[in-house]
Amino acid sequence: MSEKISIGIDIGGTNIEIGWVNFDGKILNQINYKTNKFKTGKEFADFIAPIIIDENKKYESILGIGIGAPNGNFFTGSIEFAPNLGWDEVIPLAKLFKENTGIETKLTNDANAAAYAEMIYGNAKQMKNFVVVTLGTGLGSGIIVNGEMLYGSTGFAGEFGHIIIDENGRQCGCGRKGCLETYASATGIVKTANELLTQTDSILNKIPNFEAKDIFSAALSGDEVALKSIEFTGKMLGKAIADYTALFSPEAVFLTGGLAKAHSLLIPAIENAMNDNMLKIFKNTVEILPSKLIDDNAGLLGAAAMMI
Amino acid sequence: MSEKISIGIDIGGTNIEIGWVNFDGKILNQINYKTNKFKTGKEFADFIAPIIIDENKKYESILGIGIGAPNGNFFTGSIEFAPNLGWDEVIPLAKLFKENTGIETKLTNDANAAAYAEMIYGNAKQMKNFVVVTLGTGLGSGIIVNGEMLYGSTGFAGEFGHIIIDENGRQCGCGRKGCLETYASATGIVKTANELLTQTDSILNKIPNFEAKDIFSAALSGDEVALKSIEFTGKMLGKAIADYTALFSPEAVFLTGGLAKAHSLLIPAIENAMNDNMLKIFKNTVEILPSKLIDDNAGLLGAAAMMI
Repeated sequence: MSEKISIGIDIGGTNIEIGWVNFDGKILNQINYKTNKFKTGKEFADFIAPIIIDENKKYESILGIGIGAPNGNFFTGSIEFAPNLGWDEVIPLAKLFKENTGIETKLTNDANAAAYAEMIYGNAKQMKNFVVVTLGTGLGSGIIVNGEMLYGSTGFAGEFGHIIIDENGRQCGCGRKGCLETYASATGIVKTANELLTQTDSILNKIPNFEAKDIFSAALSGDEVALKSIEFTGKMLGKAIADYTALFSPEAVFLTGGLAKAHSLLIPAIENAMNDNMLKIFKNTVEILPSKLIDDNAGLLGAAAMMI
Repeated sequence: MSEKISIGIDIGGTNIEIGWVNFDGKILNQINYKTNKFKTGKEFADFIAPIIIDENKKYESILGIGIGAPNGNFFTGSIEFAPNLGWDEVIPLAKLFKENTGIETKLTNDANAAAYAEMIYGNAKQMKNFVVVTLGTGLGSGIIVNGEMLYGSTGFAGEFGHIIIDENGRQCGCGRKGCLETYASATGIVKTANELLTQTDSILNKIPNFEAKDIFSAALSGDEVALKSIEFTGKMLGKAIADYTALFSPEAVFLTGGLAKAHSLLIPAIENAMNDNMLKIFKNTVEILPSKLIDDNAGLLGAAAMMI
């Protein structure tokens, strides 16, 4: 084959996905492992390097390896203090891969990878200013400004999930209170529903340890608590997007991650809150859209897209 | 002279300053007019074009004309709905200047011009990620990201003054409540002092219609209300900068404008609030600094800097 291929590696708390991706975003080969198969980042890099080198023989030209990982720092090429992985504290993974495979390697965080994916393979191909918001356990964001990823002076820019929207609000894992992600995330909406359940009966009461996807199902069947939970989540996110817009004036906000699968109900709630809270000059200038890659391997594709 | 010269025009609600500026930021010639001398933007452009053409004969090479104005839109080259000027609603000033003088002309808003000034002539020469915050009647901001001005998709990005920091807070001129500029501005600090005056006596009680600069003087002489007013203003701004940092991770925040002259007292208050509210990974990564051009013609220099 004469195609130019990028290798994307998506490292999550549970799974690691590795894919060989062509220019059109087609995954030609994909392998995966449980993250806890490896005790350290070095163990992972040492294990996977010969497998990559072997697979690469099938392709004429390899552009490089892109890695997306929680707390991945593009500037240093290291994963820094990512408790969910259970690996060592600082892992110079880009350097390890470069050394073990001889292939150019870049690393970024998982939300930035999702933004690269949208830009290269998704619905943001023509856009210079947009943000991809990942609504999972937490809220991550990859911000594109003037057509480039926003890393800031530290490499850690784009922590939209840690904007404080209620300083007396919910306790956040970061040690502070009222961060956006304590409301607008899969974890946040479950908390919201549990708070509302103390006031109103709901079919959610019959589901022990219900999750965000159960709330979405319940909402589709008209459950009041579930509908109010989505409404409230959309309101908090919409208000935050109004402030975000005052700073960035994006063309679009793309939603991805587990909670974003509820976009048919969530987006109208977000748009209502945006409309109520938006500075006049920005009204109706921002689209809220589900990611084109919401059901695909956005993390893997984004990691690969970094090398294009 | 063989120097390359930019022409900077700073249009404010009261004065218009026009300067011929060299590469080092030295103003070689400067003229000014009262803004209300002109009834429309076109009248101003028609009046000033022959004066510019005449003055230009003194210089070998003119790089262009840069204009900074309230509500100036870089993308359209127009001033759009700037009530303080008392001119027409939409003024295509860049186009009018280009037609009347034959010289390349760009236009931006006054806060962006201040950011260009800091980048080209000030303390941000080596920086790729910073913001200039103008603390005047309102709060304006010019945001530099990856070494470029952030205009967003509309041209109006960078409205840091209209981040909502207390949704039940003070009424803002924009029609919403609790915008940052209702607290962190010359107008905001006077309001804060007036609120505190109902509780505590102060030398400010002896100054009818006291202004921000009176609060600063009173604070330097130890007046409790004045000190508390600066403290509170710094706290509101510091909290907002903590959120700003989570998104942008800037190297520095530069303060300019009338209220920024109180930086010796204001900056420590901002830094305390930043420290209390900053996400851990960003602690001690952002400097708060007075603009190098705080006492100079930052608007004029920034307008000229746009053409470099």
